[in-house]
Amino acid sequence: MDTNKTPIYPFEPWNVTEDHLDLAMNYRNETTFALSNGYIGTRGTHEEAYDFDEQHGLEGNFLNGLYEQEHVRYGEWNFGFPTESQTILNVPNCKTIRLVIDGEPMDIRTGTLQNYRRTLDMKHGQVVRSFEWISPNGKTVRVENIRFVSLAHKNRMAQRYSVTPVNFSGTLTLHSALDADVENHTRTTNPLVDYGPFGRHLLPDALTADDKTMTCQSTAVNSKLAMACGSVHLLSEAAAATRHQANDVDAWIEYDFAAKQGHTITLEKLTVYTDSLDMDKDAMLPFVNEELTAFAADGYDKEFAAHAALMEHFWETADIRVDGDVPLQQGLRFNLYHIMQASGRDGRTGMGAKGLSGEGYEGHYFWDTEMYVLPVFVYTQPELARSLLDYRYSTLDKARDRARVLGHPIGALYPWRTINGEEASTYFPLGTAQYHINADVAYAFQLYVTVTNDIDYLADKAAEVLCETARVWADVGCFAECRGGKYCICSVTGPDEYNAIVDNNFYTNLMAQQNLYAAVNALETLKEQRPDAYQKLIEKIQLDPDEPALWKKTADAMYFAYDEKRQVYLQDDGFMLRKPWDDSRIPPEKRHLLYENYHPLFIYRQRMSKQADAIMGMMLYSALFTDEELLRNYDFYQTVTLHHSSLSTCIFGILASRIGRHEDAYTYFAQSARMDLDDYHDNFYAGIHAANMAGTWQSIVFGFAGLRLVNGVPEFKFYIPEAWNGYHFTVKIKESVLAVDVLPDGWTITLQSGDAVNFLVEGKPYELTEKGATCHEAL
Amino acid sequence: MDTNKTPIYPFEPWNVTEDHLDLAMNYRNETTFALSNGYIGTRGTHEEAYDFDEQHGLEGNFLNGLYEQEHVRYGEWNFGFPTESQTILNVPNCKTIRLVIDGEPMDIRTGTLQNYRRTLDMKHGQVVRSFEWISPNGKTVRVENIRFVSLAHKNRMAQRYSVTPVNFSGTLTLHSALDADVENHTRTTNPLVDYGPFGRHLLPDALTADDKTMTCQSTAVNSKLAMACGSVHLLSEAAAATRHQANDVDAWIEYDFAAKQGHTITLEKLTVYTDSLDMDKDAMLPFVNEELTAFAADGYDKEFAAHAALMEHFWETADIRVDGDVPLQQGLRFNLYHIMQASGRDGRTGMGAKGLSGEGYEGHYFWDTEMYVLPVFVYTQPELARSLLDYRYSTLDKARDRARVLGHPIGALYPWRTINGEEASTYFPLGTAQYHINADVAYAFQLYVTVTNDIDYLADKAAEVLCETARVWADVGCFAECRGGKYCICSVTGPDEYNAIVDNNFYTNLMAQQNLYAAVNALETLKEQRPDAYQKLIEKIQLDPDEPALWKKTADAMYFAYDEKRQVYLQDDGFMLRKPWDDSRIPPEKRHLLYENYHPLFIYRQRMSKQADAIMGMMLYSALFTDEELLRNYDFYQTVTLHHSSLSTCIFGILASRIGRHEDAYTYFAQSARMDLDDYHDNFYAGIHAANMAGTWQSIVFGFAGLRLVNGVPEFKFYIPEAWNGYHFTVKIKESVLAVDVLPDGWTITLQSGDAVNFLVEGKPYELTEKGATCHEAL
Repeated sequence: MDTNKTPIYPFEPWNVTEDHLDLAMNYRNETTFALSNGYIGTRGTHEEAYDFDEQHGLEGNFLNGLYEQEHVRYGEWNFGFPTESQTILNVPNCKTIRLVIDGEPMDIRTGTLQNYRRTLDMKHGQVVRSFEWISPNGKTVRVENIRFVSLAHKNRMAQRYSVTPVNFSGTLTLHSALDADVENHTRTTNPLVDYGPFGRHLLPDALTADDKTMTCQSTAVNSKLAMACGSVHLLSEAAAATRHQANDVDAWIEYDFAAKQGHTITLEKLTVYTDSLDMDKDAMLPFVNEELTAFAADGYDKEFAAHAALMEHFWETADIRVDGDVPLQQGLRFNLYHIMQASGRDGRTGMGAKGLSGEGYEGHYFWDTEMYVLPVFVYTQPELARSLLDYRYSTLDKARDRARVLGHPIGALYPWRTINGEEASTYFPLGTAQYHINADVAYAFQLYVTVTNDIDYLADKAAEVLCETARVWADVGCFAECRGGKYCICSVTGPDEYNAIVDNNFYTNLMAQQNLYAAVNALETLKEQRPDAYQKLIEKIQLDPDEPALWKKTADAMYFAYDEKRQVYLQDDGFMLRKPWDDSRIPPEKRHLLYENYHPLFIYRQRMSKQADAIMGMMLYSALFTDEELLRNYDFYQTVTLHHSSLSTCIFGILASRIGRHEDAYTYFAQSARMDLDDYHDNFYAGIHAANMAGTWQSIVFGFAGLRLVNGVPEFKFYIPEAWNGYHFTVKIKESVLAVDVLPDGWTITLQSGDAVNFLVEGKPYELTEKGATCHEAL
Repeated sequence: MDTNKTPIYPFEPWNVTEDHLDLAMNYRNETTFALSNGYIGTRGTHEEAYDFDEQHGLEGNFLNGLYEQEHVRYGEWNFGFPTESQTILNVPNCKTIRLVIDGEPMDIRTGTLQNYRRTLDMKHGQVVRSFEWISPNGKTVRVENIRFVSLAHKNRMAQRYSVTPVNFSGTLTLHSALDADVENHTRTTNPLVDYGPFGRHLLPDALTADDKTMTCQSTAVNSKLAMACGSVHLLSEAAAATRHQANDVDAWIEYDFAAKQGHTITLEKLTVYTDSLDMDKDAMLPFVNEELTAFAADGYDKEFAAHAALMEHFWETADIRVDGDVPLQQGLRFNLYHIMQASGRDGRTGMGAKGLSGEGYEGHYFWDTEMYVLPVFVYTQPELARSLLDYRYSTLDKARDRARVLGHPIGALYPWRTINGEEASTYFPLGTAQYHINADVAYAFQLYVTVTNDIDYLADKAAEVLCETARVWADVGCFAECRGGKYCICSVTGPDEYNAIVDNNFYTNLMAQQNLYAAVNALETLKEQRPDAYQKLIEKIQLDPDEPALWKKTADAMYFAYDEKRQVYLQDDGFMLRKPWDDSRIPPEKRHLLYENYHPLFIYRQRMSKQADAIMGMMLYSALFTDEELLRNYDFYQTVTLHHSSLSTCIFGILASRIGRHEDAYTYFAQSARMDLDDYHDNFYAGIHAANMAGTWQSIVFGFAGLRLVNGVPEFKFYIPEAWNGYHFTVKIKESVLAVDVLPDGWTITLQSGDAVNFLVEGKPYELTEKGATCHEAL
């Protein structure tokens, strides 16, 4: 990570603007300007669909959950290694609109480009591109393009293309295409994996075009999953001529306009996508046509208004306002915006580690969703959090199957990486071995239920997940006589991917312990509050009456490796046996790509950590530790953590806040806030780092404002960085929205809506009983 | 392992006989009757080259060291994973001789077969097949085929085909072929690997045939390694007609004989193989032709006499005679015969775990050579041992390169599996992680030098290997403060493949310690006895003057995990943390194929051991432990070892002998002795288990006779199993051959040849000073 990068975009509180065209930055900008609604994701490519090579651009359009499978080959296969991959498919591109001026194709890479601006308008959720272009023949046009992917309707995205002849009258042609000749960039975006899809894997079944509408249906070669899409066109004035064509791989419509100097012509292109995971394959094209008709009837402006209203709602609850630091404000909103738009909303899809912004990690869902993104939504957009949890619940049967594959007679084991709910990790030391995913998923269910007090959800889904995951924890380890009968868990990999296949990983054991307790508590809560649901659950999962006692016994006996001399918890049993890390042995250019430059065994043998691991556990459950303990552990892990993962600094920052290491906290926060905007990892082209993006919100709310749960009760501990004039956010606790304002001279909490609510500030209890009530203390 | 199998072949002391044709056993019999001279290996297929399918037979012919490469694909590649495989190539088959009787093809699967016998004559190193066959038309022939692969000439093998018309006179046609249309059986013999070679990979460049001679040259598609072969034919009488043909994939010669009833016709087919690792590609065919001419001039009988003399020499020094137990005698000789014939003899080849008897493990060389086979040769055929060591020395530069890949700035790291000296393991947890291979290679060099006192070899090669391997041990671990400054080695896999990526594997640490000491001692010996060689070596390897002290310090501080309660050494740090093994959870049919039925993580978490691991170390260095220690450890590891590897029981047996567990020792010995002959593992079709075969010899000499080195001095401790009337063997110590006779009433050691020699028997010193001198004690 290089944190000394020159900022790429001007500092603006609500916008990210590319203020001059730099084609070398194209691939990265495609991620910056990517739009999504959690179902459709489209990269920030230009309307003209320039043909960049694999090192400079990727026309990427994705549908959440739609994937291709390939047979995975292993040097040596072992039982339980996935044999079929899952890779998010690049789907047909409907965005293409090309302009031809009296026969001259408009190309911003040629001619003369003036006043070029492209802006991600985060407040309204749209990308606006505008420029003037002087053709080689001297004809000047003013162009403005706007696009958005609608939060109001899952299947819709829209574009508005406006062009004005500045110094001439003549024929303007708008060529709108649907390009179904698409493929993934596997080699570039996932260089270490050796399966595809390579080449064309989503093959068109049918393409149509008429004067107004184009449609396409395609099917994936191996997975047989199918999708359909189409666009309808609305014109600001009648075209002088119209042509259209559909062939095997694309469709297009061309409109000729007799354009008058100074008079703007506008084309609205309204697009619909769907896929066979939402409906029968036969129903897809009829759906697309109906939805296009409805969309055309609604029109661009109405759809945008509905979309913008939802954007406004999002910012109302999720925004954090920072007074006095525009660069950080911009990074913060950029991060919030990208995680909001990329989250699956339909209960059958999750959220990729790269959102829907690129092909990185094959579009897989990891623990990033549950441990980084979901807590943000739990406190700000609980319905979004619930959708993501619904997805995990929908794959519970697959997790049960996976547990059997791993030799667990009962229970469920969630996969380390997946799209369809099956394990897609093809390298188990850094994949399936990360058993903590199971406790991470459980944590998210538990957090949601605790913060929202949604007991119905506990009864319907959460308790079942908590129990099934707990069962695996109660089976995976054993009460080891040589550790005084403590419960030990062997051969797992924690979050830290530089120490794989270890015994008693601190984070894993802690999360497992809390998973077990949560399952016990869930059953007790249900038994008391929802006896029918309780009875139904224990029948469904055939709960043995002795199991909850075993879970509690297991949790009570959980072992944590401890260094008596340093008085710190060890990341795992063998941590202090490893070779002291010597950065100087590693050439600088290899330091951040250890697995591409060093054999795993070399890496495993070093006493260092890629990222927050034990510290992550302590951050999450800081109430279980004294401040002195946290401080000692923080200091220790500061010295051995390399932060080679984007998931690390935000967690260190939160714990730094907790223990009063405010300078560290601010530094970590700043790194986290602008990590992607300034491309610290030099790989933003492959997609966003969703976990870190969410971590920025956490850095403020859980860090500077110190929000945590203490026995289920929210507690704050406020701090304001010296450089700031104030920061403001809201959180939703149960049905109540609290507005939190922190200024240098004190904090104020206002009950913005909802019922009476209790909380703590540094251990002191507060209650706000009526809407508008506030409490305030000096800092 | 199923040790209750019905014996397959009759009990005979010197032979293994198939006394009736059972085609269902064909694939396995091809291994039983395989012949080799350490360069050419040919499976025991029938002369008629029947076209068995992949489940029932493999026409296999191999040249030691000749391999094909394939690009290896990984689900996810990491730095240092081999990208090119190495697989021993199946080369053209020169053995085919078909008989046609008045136009009727002789086929032992049809017609009537009588008095069928096929015998592996281990004393003389040949396979003899004989039978009478009555054709569907009622014509009876008597057939005898003999074949051998010459120990006298690396490139030669010979066949003699005799046929006698019993009840008719008529035309007998002998069709002799060279079949170059060959491919490997990768899917059957190595089902877990997912690279080839699949299909034809050794493509003929040229095939020739004339009335007497056929030749072929072929080149491997990827490795570009090439081979050539040819056969010349000698007839007992002139043929009535001769036809020949050579096409793209095979060549043949046909001889018609006017055969008279009762009169035997004999064809001698003399075959020569060579390859491009021994000479320029252009020189191969000229060499084959010259060698065929010379071979024809020598004739079958002369070659066989030379071969048989070498067989006699082998048995003189290597045979163990057991009085009173023919089944074990037979198993013992079968095992000795197969390891003898399969060992590379040219200094550029090693010995595959399957010898040259099949394609199992792709023909790779493992630690089996050094730790199981080589000790047998060190004491019986030191020149053979030295050849195998020469091979390892020849790959030292590649081991140096590999150490760099694993991040070691100096030193050499031998590959876990290889043919050409480069790492060929495509699964590092059970491959490259087995660092102990480095100490195993060093152990073999050290053992050879100690037993032979070959100081020249120490100076020329052994010391360099000892120092280079020691360097890796001095770099791989660290002096861990948390273990009182003891030297810990993390993230290795020991011999036990059910516990992978562990810390402080007992066997590894012990072998590393001894490797380090051996390097220090080697330098001291050279400095004293070969100062010039010493100087040359330290210059060559740029030895830092502080290194030997570091090696000694490292060895002195080596850490060994210890269970205070049980007073046993632990196989590794985490061993007692794992789940107690419960065999009852595993269905019987899955118990011996754990990796094909259980995920690695499930296996790693169980407190059990696939095979001798800590016990192997204690067996090798029993003098470092008290008998009480050995007993406690033996008892402990008996309870946790599953013996799912063929390398296990012989080691337990030797230690059982050491500590007086004689019944156990005998049981283990018996299992080891007949493991392959009775096919306990049901996979003999894929090739011999060379390590276990050698382990049988070790079980008697190191086990029952208790031979070990104590500070470099040989020590015996005799025991004779109750069922035996006596056993007899010879061992060579330095230049002296000792004949050892153990009878129920006492042992006798005779100096059969060589200089005066000192040894111990149970700690008591003896010296034999003249040839023929004996010592004797009651048991």
